[in-house]
Amino acid sequence: MPRRVDHQERRQRIAGALWRIASTRGLEGASLRDVAAEAGISLGQLQHYFATREEMLRFTLEHFSALSGERIRKRVATGYPEPTPRAVLREIAAELLPLSEEQRVALRVQLGYLVRVLHDEGLRPQAREGVLALRGLLADQLRIAAERGELTAGLDPEREAVRLLALTDGLANAVLLDVLAPGAAMGLVDEHLGGVFGG
Amino acid sequence: MPRRVDHQERRQRIAGALWRIASTRGLEGASLRDVAAEAGISLGQLQHYFATREEMLRFTLEHFSALSGERIRKRVATGYPEPTPRAVLREIAAELLPLSEEQRVALRVQLGYLVRVLHDEGLRPQAREGVLALRGLLADQLRIAAERGELTAGLDPEREAVRLLALTDGLANAVLLDVLAPGAAMGLVDEHLGGVFGG
Repeated sequence: MPRRVDHQERRQRIAGALWRIASTRGLEGASLRDVAAEAGISLGQLQHYFATREEMLRFTLEHFSALSGERIRKRVATGYPEPTPRAVLREIAAELLPLSEEQRVALRVQLGYLVRVLHDEGLRPQAREGVLALRGLLADQLRIAAERGELTAGLDPEREAVRLLALTDGLANAVLLDVLAPGAAMGLVDEHLGGVFGG
Repeated sequence: MPRRVDHQERRQRIAGALWRIASTRGLEGASLRDVAAEAGISLGQLQHYFATREEMLRFTLEHFSALSGERIRKRVATGYPEPTPRAVLREIAAELLPLSEEQRVALRVQLGYLVRVLHDEGLRPQAREGVLALRGLLADQLRIAAERGELTAGLDPEREAVRLLALTDGLANAVLLDVLAPGAAMGLVDEHLGGVFGG
């Protein structure tokens, strides 16, 4: 199986190169040729792994989204002896805000991808699935909270998932544009969760 | 003064051409040459009005932002005999959501511009000013509401302006991506305003 592992490692190395270019010049500035150069491989080698720019983009976003999920899991596991749904939701929201330089880069790349998706029907299904999966994850936590009697009475988990994601998304844009401090954004998320979890 | 009027009309015609290109192919697909062709003028004529792509972009966004403000004023003036702060806030939020095809196009173009701005320090001050002006407009309405005793006790107008803008922004993205119906987004805005205005 070592060959297979190498393949995956090579793909991740390419994804990292695309990420670095996208974070400085934007996604539009990243051709297959540029990415190959940044990854230190030939264009032919790159095309062995990704036949098209879209395939490369998709893999890269999935790869960084997986890393982001990993970070959330770690923070929840190390930060809370018995993680509550509220704690999990807080950590997910924190991951979706540009609180660190790394997250700032990730969000900038994701926004660039969103714009591409909005002009390209072919990319939309994957992007929609990603958002719906994240929303489902939040709704699951909110349902568990409701079962534990922790949710404010009368709130619908599915609806609250939409609200929390939308708020976080909008706050993230404000932080990226430097019209809101990262700490203030997190403060508004905490206040929001305070309302959802009955204070 | 007829010459001056002609200039302004010509600039608006160019802005319309840029808008049409940006709404289908995205901002990256709009070179000065493309825009001149779409507007039915020569590149030289276009450059008489806009020396750079950035100047053209800036004017176009200001022009469409002014049209958007005009639409809000009209809807408030015709829809409410005595417009309350809550009604004004609702109409501003409605204008910021992709409820019509025209608004969908506008938001797509604006998102493309946001991504450009995030990769270009030079464009950031104007974009920041735009967001801060909008936030100030909302905060003014919320302050009037507080003076009229209509705001839920304990809420800070400035903070509520940030919350309402962030929520609307995030909901707009969800509607653009077709993971939320326009009506559901407006419903969440109304629910939010219900909380801000004490039910």
